[in-house]
Amino acid sequence: MTQPAKGTVGELGEFGLIDRFVGRLGPAPGALLGPGDDAAVLAAPDGRVVVSTDGLVEGRHFRRDWSSAEDVGHKAAAQAIADIVAMGAVPTGVVVALALPADTPTDWIDGLADGLRTECATAGTSVVGGDVIRSDALTITLTATGDLQGAAPVTRGGARPGDAVAVAGRLGWAAAGLLVLSRGFRSPLAVVSAHRRPEPPYAQGPIAAKLGATAMCDISDGLIQDARHVAAASGVRVNLATDRLSIPDKLRDVASALGVDPLQWLLEGGEDHALLATYPAEVSLPEPWLPIGSVAPGSGVYVDGESRQAGGYDHFG
Amino acid sequence: MTQPAKGTVGELGEFGLIDRFVGRLGPAPGALLGPGDDAAVLAAPDGRVVVSTDGLVEGRHFRRDWSSAEDVGHKAAAQAIADIVAMGAVPTGVVVALALPADTPTDWIDGLADGLRTECATAGTSVVGGDVIRSDALTITLTATGDLQGAAPVTRGGARPGDAVAVAGRLGWAAAGLLVLSRGFRSPLAVVSAHRRPEPPYAQGPIAAKLGATAMCDISDGLIQDARHVAAASGVRVNLATDRLSIPDKLRDVASALGVDPLQWLLEGGEDHALLATYPAEVSLPEPWLPIGSVAPGSGVYVDGESRQAGGYDHFG
Repeated sequence: MTQPAKGTVGELGEFGLIDRFVGRLGPAPGALLGPGDDAAVLAAPDGRVVVSTDGLVEGRHFRRDWSSAEDVGHKAAAQAIADIVAMGAVPTGVVVALALPADTPTDWIDGLADGLRTECATAGTSVVGGDVIRSDALTITLTATGDLQGAAPVTRGGARPGDAVAVAGRLGWAAAGLLVLSRGFRSPLAVVSAHRRPEPPYAQGPIAAKLGATAMCDISDGLIQDARHVAAASGVRVNLATDRLSIPDKLRDVASALGVDPLQWLLEGGEDHALLATYPAEVSLPEPWLPIGSVAPGSGVYVDGESRQAGGYDHFG
Repeated sequence: MTQPAKGTVGELGEFGLIDRFVGRLGPAPGALLGPGDDAAVLAAPDGRVVVSTDGLVEGRHFRRDWSSAEDVGHKAAAQAIADIVAMGAVPTGVVVALALPADTPTDWIDGLADGLRTECATAGTSVVGGDVIRSDALTITLTATGDLQGAAPVTRGGARPGDAVAVAGRLGWAAAGLLVLSRGFRSPLAVVSAHRRPEPPYAQGPIAAKLGATAMCDISDGLIQDARHVAAASGVRVNLATDRLSIPDKLRDVASALGVDPLQWLLEGGEDHALLATYPAEVSLPEPWLPIGSVAPGSGVYVDGESRQAGGYDHFG
């Protein structure tokens, strides 16, 4: 039997690892019962609970040479919590399942915990429990819960002809950052950071529900792809108008340097976890909601009047 | 670009895979909103929700040559739901995150869905949502939720000196099955099946809460190891008496054939997901609860008066 390497999770062992990780995560103020038992207990004052699960695997969703452990923690939490707010709910807790190689550095685990803790706090929630197992592939699975505060869940299926289509949050930034990194660059930091640490507009999910949004989802696969999900679930056609999308100077500069069309990032780039919602036409949309189109009878997604079939990410494609 | 192999998840693609898996899982009767949106919505009539997450990775928690896909579905669901009932809660839903190699056969995914569906139904619940990602390591992460129905959660930390210690469910069967398989045998089926498809006594969790159990956990790491968790969390000593544990004839026969001590399986074998609970001495325990010891002041676990330090499973050990 070989000795596990110093400073690795193999050296800590399962229970040492759990103790260290839980200690690093700190208290779980939102939990009635936090980490350390068979399960956590959370308040569900609404009498319903919203729940969503999301996995990230090294080499596909993150690379340790492109993102720090803390970045990965931020990204994992942002991705999971974005699904909760996209239903119009307020996040109430996150449980994390870690599948780790035994040679994962303890420092990396500390960083992951820091990123998870900080991003959860930004969204007003905390990690309340988890599981660690050994695996050859570093995989992080987060399950987030939320409370609807008396509102109806905002599904993808409620868009009606005549509704306005709007987004809150950034479009194309994470895609730009990913291309910069994949070309071997580490800057400009603004776009690279957007890939490493998405900034979903957490507060806007429950706000959209209160404003009367008829459908909503977070943009994880790209604006067109996710609009297609809304169109399909609602049985409607979604029209997007690119003249409503202003391309940020920073993205224009980066695109120019890399020789690509920045509009593609806005239309097809996922992982910024902006929110896409439809609203009755009469709703006056507050900042930061940006109207970018309309709902019509029919099916599919049309950009400036042209049908768009593809554009987005298929994990197995 | 190479073509994905016929009959694999790579050929289906991400969205084809999701459609097929969700279709195979069938309806989610317990969900207010089932699979297909950013998140599921479940009833939480108690105003609190119990949540627990568990990962299984191929080669560590299951082997495709030892267990069918359906077996793996049963085992994954049993393991996740056992944590919910071990809090005294009734299961209300399961979300599943699948990390799969692109060459995973579609048939295997169908079998997994069948196993998950059937085991969830046995426990009175269903799969309500999920996520699929591509990975080199086949990893299944289940997160289960539960409702406490007005009872206090039964933690590991409530055992008091004078309490009785009792178990419900099987001990040692899964460990016997695992050893049989690891020695290259495929029978006797009774023990091999116990490894493939644990049978947690789901109904006994909420029953224990109503009976007034002071502490409870499911036995996933072995009786001694899990009793140590209760002892540590409660700040007490747990005494176990082996003369209360009758060794089933089947386990005795298998142990004899393999040349091992069957008592070790009962004391140190995990993954049957029996329930271990402590009760005030005056509680009259109904079937199938079996008194096997008592709680005393002090710390640690003693078997027939002898301190037991080890015995159990450390995933990174």
